[in-house]
Amino acid sequence: MPAEMRSSTRGFKRYYNPDVGDAVRMDTNTNVLGSNPAATRFMKEFEGSINNYPNTYSDRLRDTLAELYGLDRENFVTGSGSDELLDVSFKTFTEWGDNAAVPVPSYTLYDYFVKMNGGSVSEIDLTEDFQLDVDSFVSSGSRIMIAPSPNNPTGNCFRQKDLEDLLSRFDGVVIVDEAYAEYSGEGMIRRVNEFDNLIVLRTFSKAYAMAGLRVGYAAACEDIADKMNRVKIPYSLNMVSEGAAIAALKDQDFLRRSVDLVRKERPVLAEGLRKLGFEPFPSDSNFILARSPVDHTCLVNGMKKRGVLIRDFGSKRRTENCVRTTVGTKELNDLLLDTAEDVLEDCRRG
Amino acid sequence: MPAEMRSSTRGFKRYYNPDVGDAVRMDTNTNVLGSNPAATRFMKEFEGSINNYPNTYSDRLRDTLAELYGLDRENFVTGSGSDELLDVSFKTFTEWGDNAAVPVPSYTLYDYFVKMNGGSVSEIDLTEDFQLDVDSFVSSGSRIMIAPSPNNPTGNCFRQKDLEDLLSRFDGVVIVDEAYAEYSGEGMIRRVNEFDNLIVLRTFSKAYAMAGLRVGYAAACEDIADKMNRVKIPYSLNMVSEGAAIAALKDQDFLRRSVDLVRKERPVLAEGLRKLGFEPFPSDSNFILARSPVDHTCLVNGMKKRGVLIRDFGSKRRTENCVRTTVGTKELNDLLLDTAEDVLEDCRRG
Repeated sequence: MPAEMRSSTRGFKRYYNPDVGDAVRMDTNTNVLGSNPAATRFMKEFEGSINNYPNTYSDRLRDTLAELYGLDRENFVTGSGSDELLDVSFKTFTEWGDNAAVPVPSYTLYDYFVKMNGGSVSEIDLTEDFQLDVDSFVSSGSRIMIAPSPNNPTGNCFRQKDLEDLLSRFDGVVIVDEAYAEYSGEGMIRRVNEFDNLIVLRTFSKAYAMAGLRVGYAAACEDIADKMNRVKIPYSLNMVSEGAAIAALKDQDFLRRSVDLVRKERPVLAEGLRKLGFEPFPSDSNFILARSPVDHTCLVNGMKKRGVLIRDFGSKRRTENCVRTTVGTKELNDLLLDTAEDVLEDCRRG
Repeated sequence: MPAEMRSSTRGFKRYYNPDVGDAVRMDTNTNVLGSNPAATRFMKEFEGSINNYPNTYSDRLRDTLAELYGLDRENFVTGSGSDELLDVSFKTFTEWGDNAAVPVPSYTLYDYFVKMNGGSVSEIDLTEDFQLDVDSFVSSGSRIMIAPSPNNPTGNCFRQKDLEDLLSRFDGVVIVDEAYAEYSGEGMIRRVNEFDNLIVLRTFSKAYAMAGLRVGYAAACEDIADKMNRVKIPYSLNMVSEGAAIAALKDQDFLRRSVDLVRKERPVLAEGLRKLGFEPFPSDSNFILARSPVDHTCLVNGMKKRGVLIRDFGSKRRTENCVRTTVGTKELNDLLLDTAEDVLEDCRRG
């Protein structure tokens, strides 16, 4: 008899990862300046022994993070991508069947991490301008909630005072996913010791340009971080990725250039989109969500045929007819806008 | 109010990882020939872009494994160490509170993976000669079980016919952890398509000498492997570790030398231990469990003071007064035996 899956996971499908060939990827929000140079150098010059186990809790990386943020080693938990820390958060702080409150619209994978751990999801709508409706979260009866800031795919940060309000009123753990916070220049990470129910998640996959090495971390008060470290799989972060992440943190110049580029090009791209008839939403991140002036499917498929990938959110509630594009270099943005212009014409002609 | 942990995890402590300085480590069962040369070379010559996400399910590694074992890509699931595959096995195939049958003595971390996922453990004693008591497992009422073969810390393989018997009679999933199977030269991995309830786990941390890169995999019939892939975190295996693992698989010469060394030195080390008064147990692996002729604590501490680490199992039921040592090179084994001889004398003198 075939083995039966955990009841909460039976609807799971594999995560889509198309072979995209040479297409220009404006759909993944990775760093358009290319691979992190310090991390790449670290790898090529690596002299350690890969025959030894890594340090169990990545102490050296945690020390480097502590120094950067003015916190303590024991405020941090590391993992193989911030995805692992999402998993660990639910594993550590939820019982079977617990409700998790997840905003709509936001990152589609949250749902999967909740169910993987035997929980169920309460979808809570964001307000018209994609901000937190604090009362709805507080009254949701959930034991844990997620607030990605900047939010994906909308691009905006939540207001600090709403987050503070939530943290004081929500009866459970609040996960603030700051995957794109390097671009917004604000965030809650330095304030984790003020709250006994806050987990901040960060990643090296976006601004740090190391998605291939899978490094993420959580910051929290020492009580929460200690509980997560006790539950997480020992040495899940491999020693080369750990070393590369330390090297990347010590080269803040690359990060600054990456962030500066996005801040400079973002308004230019938004204006270009507006001129073509799109309605771009305000972004604090390295991507822009915009409502398309033509049918989203025609637009995204037309762009793909011309070798430029953008992400389609047009069939989802609250982002009807919207698409998301990464903010590129000037050259990439020009290519994106020129291609979009041609495709819009094709779609209008039908 | 401090956030409460999942009830099944509240007893968890951090995994012990002492700073051992320059000590000779005969306690971790890693490869005594040192780091995998092909994997190290791959890393230094890496030309890919770490700014891209890895392939979601490590297709290239799974293809290479399929070729090696005469199976199909869809028989495999990859992860960040075989620890991740243990986690995924419980996540995919157990409900909250399900019982997992775990042999005694065996690997201490199994317990932790079960509880992390909301389950409970039924400990099932092995027979006098550390073999499977098939009837006890079958009648345990468990939905999932683990049978590490070769078993750790005892070192022996379970009999194939007992494993076959179990697989046909046990009403649930059977995880055969073959972390050390390269040394025993047998195993169930090529036979996964014969059983609809078998998961075989393998690792690159032992014979392949890549513990630092965290690579493991599961092999199973396509139905089970598909279910696990749907539940596992997408691209949890980073691209450098994946590439290094492929390189290591293609260099079977290093593996052969590693295995040949252990097969040659193992009986010599066992005989040396016997001469000192130890009672070594039969091993199919790269380590030997042996009952100490003096108090185990005195022995292990004495060895440590002289800079040689071995693992102490002397306080655990079924391995009373036993210690475990890795099988080393001739030089390492001589050092181990010489050191043990001195320490035995000290302990006897008291």
